[in-house]
Amino acid sequence: MTSDMMLAYVLHGPEDMRPTELPRPEPGEGQVLLRVRRAGICGSDIHYFTHGQIGRFVPKRPFVLGHEFAGEIAALGAGVEPSLLGARVAVDPSIPCGRCRQCRRGRYNLCLDMRFFGSASCDPHLDGGFAEFVAVPARSVHPLPDEISWGEAALLEPLSVAMHACMRAGPLLGRSVLVTGGGAIGLLVVMVARAAGAAPVVVSDPAPFARRTAAAIGADAALDPTSADFAAEASAHSEGGFEVAFEASGVPRALAQAVALAERGATIVQVGTLPAEVTLPLNDIMARELTLAGSFRFANVFDAALRLLAMRRIDVKPLVSKVLSLERMNEAMAMAVAKDGVVKVQVEQ
Amino acid sequence: MTSDMMLAYVLHGPEDMRPTELPRPEPGEGQVLLRVRRAGICGSDIHYFTHGQIGRFVPKRPFVLGHEFAGEIAALGAGVEPSLLGARVAVDPSIPCGRCRQCRRGRYNLCLDMRFFGSASCDPHLDGGFAEFVAVPARSVHPLPDEISWGEAALLEPLSVAMHACMRAGPLLGRSVLVTGGGAIGLLVVMVARAAGAAPVVVSDPAPFARRTAAAIGADAALDPTSADFAAEASAHSEGGFEVAFEASGVPRALAQAVALAERGATIVQVGTLPAEVTLPLNDIMARELTLAGSFRFANVFDAALRLLAMRRIDVKPLVSKVLSLERMNEAMAMAVAKDGVVKVQVEQ
Amino acid sequence: MTSDMMLAYVLHGPEDMRPTELPRPEPGEGQVLLRVRRAGICGSDIHYFTHGQIGRFVPKRPFVLGHEFAGEIAALGAGVEPSLLGARVAVDPSIPCGRCRQCRRGRYNLCLDMRFFGSASCDPHLDGGFAEFVAVPARSVHPLPDEISWGEAALLEPLSVAMHACMRAGPLLGRSVLVTGGGAIGLLVVMVARAAGAAPVVVSDPAPFARRTAAAIGADAALDPTSADFAAEASAHSEGGFEVAFEASGVPRALAQAVALAERGATIVQVGTLPAEVTLPLNDIMARELTLAGSFRFANVFDAALRLLAMRRIDVKPLVSKVLSLERMNEAMAMAVAKDGVVKVQVEQ
Amino acid sequence: MTSDMMLAYVLHGPEDMRPTELPRPEPGEGQVLLRVRRAGICGSDIHYFTHGQIGRFVPKRPFVLGHEFAGEIAALGAGVEPSLLGARVAVDPSIPCGRCRQCRRGRYNLCLDMRFFGSASCDPHLDGGFAEFVAVPARSVHPLPDEISWGEAALLEPLSVAMHACMRAGPLLGRSVLVTGGGAIGLLVVMVARAAGAAPVVVSDPAPFARRTAAAIGADAALDPTSADFAAEASAHSEGGFEVAFEASGVPRALAQAVALAERGATIVQVGTLPAEVTLPLNDIMARELTLAGSFRFANVFDAALRLLAMRRIDVKPLVSKVLSLERMNEAMAMAVAKDGVVKVQVEQ
Repeated sequence: MTSDMMLAYVLHGPEDMRPTELPRPEPGEGQVLLRVRRAGICGSDIHYFTHGQIGRFVPKRPFVLGHEFAGEIAALGAGVEPSLLGARVAVDPSIPCGRCRQCRRGRYNLCLDMRFFGSASCDPHLDGGFAEFVAVPARSVHPLPDEISWGEAALLEPLSVAMHACMRAGPLLGRSVLVTGGGAIGLLVVMVARAAGAAPVVVSDPAPFARRTAAAIGADAALDPTSADFAAEASAHSEGGFEVAFEASGVPRALAQAVALAERGATIVQVGTLPAEVTLPLNDIMARELTLAGSFRFANVFDAALRLLAMRRIDVKPLVSKVLSLERMNEAMAMAVAKDGVVKVQVEQ
Repeated sequence: MTSDMMLAYVLHGPEDMRPTELPRPEPGEGQVLLRVRRAGICGSDIHYFTHGQIGRFVPKRPFVLGHEFAGEIAALGAGVEPSLLGARVAVDPSIPCGRCRQCRRGRYNLCLDMRFFGSASCDPHLDGGFAEFVAVPARSVHPLPDEISWGEAALLEPLSVAMHACMRAGPLLGRSVLVTGGGAIGLLVVMVARAAGAAPVVVSDPAPFARRTAAAIGADAALDPTSADFAAEASAHSEGGFEVAFEASGVPRALAQAVALAERGATIVQVGTLPAEVTLPLNDIMARELTLAGSFRFANVFDAALRLLAMRRIDVKPLVSKVLSLERMNEAMAMAVAKDGVVKVQVEQ
Repeated sequence: MTSDMMLAYVLHGPEDMRPTELPRPEPGEGQVLLRVRRAGICGSDIHYFTHGQIGRFVPKRPFVLGHEFAGEIAALGAGVEPSLLGARVAVDPSIPCGRCRQCRRGRYNLCLDMRFFGSASCDPHLDGGFAEFVAVPARSVHPLPDEISWGEAALLEPLSVAMHACMRAGPLLGRSVLVTGGGAIGLLVVMVARAAGAAPVVVSDPAPFARRTAAAIGADAALDPTSADFAAEASAHSEGGFEVAFEASGVPRALAQAVALAERGATIVQVGTLPAEVTLPLNDIMARELTLAGSFRFANVFDAALRLLAMRRIDVKPLVSKVLSLERMNEAMAMAVAKDGVVKVQVEQ
Repeated sequence: MTSDMMLAYVLHGPEDMRPTELPRPEPGEGQVLLRVRRAGICGSDIHYFTHGQIGRFVPKRPFVLGHEFAGEIAALGAGVEPSLLGARVAVDPSIPCGRCRQCRRGRYNLCLDMRFFGSASCDPHLDGGFAEFVAVPARSVHPLPDEISWGEAALLEPLSVAMHACMRAGPLLGRSVLVTGGGAIGLLVVMVARAAGAAPVVVSDPAPFARRTAAAIGADAALDPTSADFAAEASAHSEGGFEVAFEASGVPRALAQAVALAERGATIVQVGTLPAEVTLPLNDIMARELTLAGSFRFANVFDAALRLLAMRRIDVKPLVSKVLSLERMNEAMAMAVAKDGVVKVQVEQ
């Protein structure tokens, strides 16, 4: 490949992601050229890959997935601080407009004109991190202290999603927490809830591997929601019900269980991707005065997430299950799709 | 009737409420004997009357309905401040335990051991206000200034329900508000939201009478949710969507409309009584980061509601549609059930 | 004056504001040229005028005061929506950067790189509205419906300050409120607190004119804080103490009175400009668990303020005491400084 | 001593605490007789001991200090659950009325009719835990799991004070925190803030021992506030200023430092006991929109504190510096007063 070309994986449709030689992007004004060193595969990448789209986000052209990535700054566009050249950085993939009323309120994850790497939610789509290089705004990169490895750095984005979900619930200090779903986001919520002082933190997941992992990374209990004893076991950990629940599985039945196990007055944060239509015991939500709060991406937590990793308050390394070279991207995606004994699959260069 | 007996209306089953001669209650220690002067018929009274029960609250014995009432103090139990004798008072029908963890947190409407007048939710049931006399704790009565009429006093309880619903939404000052449902609670929410500075306040109700009343008491618009233009009309009042919605109709479709018309990041308060199971676009609630907050009865607002009436910040008198004598209780209930051109029906002595 | 020149009032030092012929500004890209129709004199303008500076904001060059202004759009810079030409608009004088962490959190009034019209707080200073024309970003103008007069439009900025102060206190619905200080900001806080449902709203000011005005615009009581009976009179309006207080006088003794009259657990919002050093009963603030919250300028309320005026929820017209032509600017300033029977003095063209 | 008498330490005046033979209390209805096993000496005990009073709390009769205590239930009054006999329990020394408006709001630490063990703040005073036995309401005892030692149990009360202070600041997850004062409360705030996810947590205290202890129990930095480099060193840990500060020293200069080092928009929680009058830069608090929140005792956290200890989220054992037998109470008090290399001094039986 000539020096002005690069390898990227372009999604053309369901299960059709093609290694492609693309022109290496030129960093524009205020941008840097990032040489991607590590990129993680997210649930939404999997969804795009298997279905070719995700909900109402339907790609208008082939594009490059990947929004969990970190790397080295290989070149600078005009107007960028020269000291950034060569820096190890993580990328916050959100590029909010900074001007709409959601941005002005501080809820920039709800920006009316959001651009987001590796997503078809904005038009034109912004090619993501499953590539050798990406041009990103200098303002989107966060320099990494030496003690943060590439694997951790590429987990900062989903860690931020988990932190935002926890912030939606208010202070967790000393509160009893249920997390339904032990995938990457569920496990990160467990880690963050523990770091925020929740006690106990109970996880439910039907997969033994997920439960083992949850217990290993600090859950006080990891229960099988398909077991006949589930409700009794969960209740044994939360006299009167859980004060906070996080639904991170995207399974309607798990949300129903979270509602049933919640204490009067509790908050349930929906962070998993549910089907469009879900049936809920709404009268119970009213009569027990529950609060159901959606949580979407994140705002105002990326720096704090980075600090929590750097200061070793949270250790996300156990979540990196597999690291393959970028050339094995399709193999990595197959592993991520299979979910067989893996939490997070990443590709590296 | 001898002086130690009284008239009360006892609910025996669906559509079976019988005028009955009962012993006049004796006020116990810390209690007062209230001569009821005005009592309102609530939606839950209607529900008990028509179905004989309400959700999981199934009466264990015949009992007296009515939790919206006010009157004069006719006798005092031991240990009660003598100056209360003869006082005009409204009754807060909630008797929380004051000790459980919900009470200690200040959410005493969620008390684990709540007693409530005219309700089968507590055991033994506490006979309510559709009677000549009721014995109530001295601590539950709120003296009325002269300027508050009996009709207004008997609306303090549902006004408190509306205020609590508004408090669940946070500050309403300058916020755009949608209220789905123009019954008594919906209209009180309109009044309270206006008094709290909401602008605009838009109501939806399929009944022309409800819409006319809403407009008359201060709604900025009153729309028909069954009209083909409903969404467009509602959106015209709320660029970008409503910042807050109150679902006060108990109709699943109205909740779906509230979700669809809400701005990103909005709060939707569920105060109406929905069916047990309701289908909702949960993925949309997550992706637009909505908050759905149940609101049940009220806490910490009765005194403030009284002050708002006394200081003429809110005028609830237009909601009193019909006042019949207690002897015509069943006729009054039939009017309340028919909902034909009436908001609130009250009985008086 | 030739058509490319204009009249402006340039502050050179204490009590030295000179009518000056300046080049009419050219609207740059994304800017509009505003022909100022009305500009109000704020307490900070008075402070700059009398002292030549305000706290640590010391002008580095002569500049034009005035940040409460509205007018007509007389010309458009490149890239501005053509329909804006000729529009009647109010100006939000805050130009936050939109990128710093305060902006990203939604607290853009605390922007680390704020630009603000008519203020020496940013460098270079941005000339303000005491001039025939000002070039302003198109994003800073808010079109006015016909029903909002120029006098009201030029009060939108201080009304926003009052709204922000109220938002700092949380919901005011049904809460008892004390406002110390009956100047323009104090009176606007009274109006906004009433519009937000506060009851009662009590004002303290030693000046009879201020008290009369407060009573006229809706305060439930207007008391003299220098009277021997002040504490008793104020307490008569707030059994147990005020739930919320706003200190809007900038007088240390008034803050001490607000602390003394506050209920346990109350919030006191400091919106007036106090001296650098103030002595407070800090142990009392701890032992009664008061919250003292600073309030600075405003964020996220300008549009809502405009809506409250347009929908007649708040009527600020009684606060416009005097309107002089721009040519009489120094006379207007003298009236504003004298504070003799005036609330707000404005200049017009 | 006969079996119906007991040893207690009665405070008669400044530095006059006398070992006294008192009648062993009889547990009344709903009470238990606690055999005290461990009692800690608090800063307020020290203050009563050295000054004979504390602020406006002036003892009306000699009484027994001590509100941090735990022990075994030796006898039961009427109506108490029999299984409590012999139980190891900690005592929450707050006995709120459960009925006043502060209690109903959930702010029962501000109860208008609070009774509190070992304090002259209520009348009659309630004798405290520096005695062999205390009669306490059954509702005030919290059974201890085996893994909680007596030393930890007697720290639950100050741990609750620290937790309440942290709750006053909102979520601490990922936030930068300054704690001024490394005494027992300051160090407990450090522990709780860390457990709640704060990062970094920086302590200031002029005493080398306090700084060493702070570093040992998890502070990220422990700085000397009298050092010329203090501000620079503290700032190096908090780019832009601390997001939250806790003033736990009771020293006015420390509060001024907390204000100076706080970020715009930050919250400063005052938990230490300051002099009645303190001079503060109030204009700065307004212009940087700081929030100063008093924190008094605690509400709604005792159970959570117990859970955090039982689940080993927080380890308070390093704070127990000295344990003497009850007979050496005056010696223990002298050590606590001297503060020489001790954090918490406890007495045991």
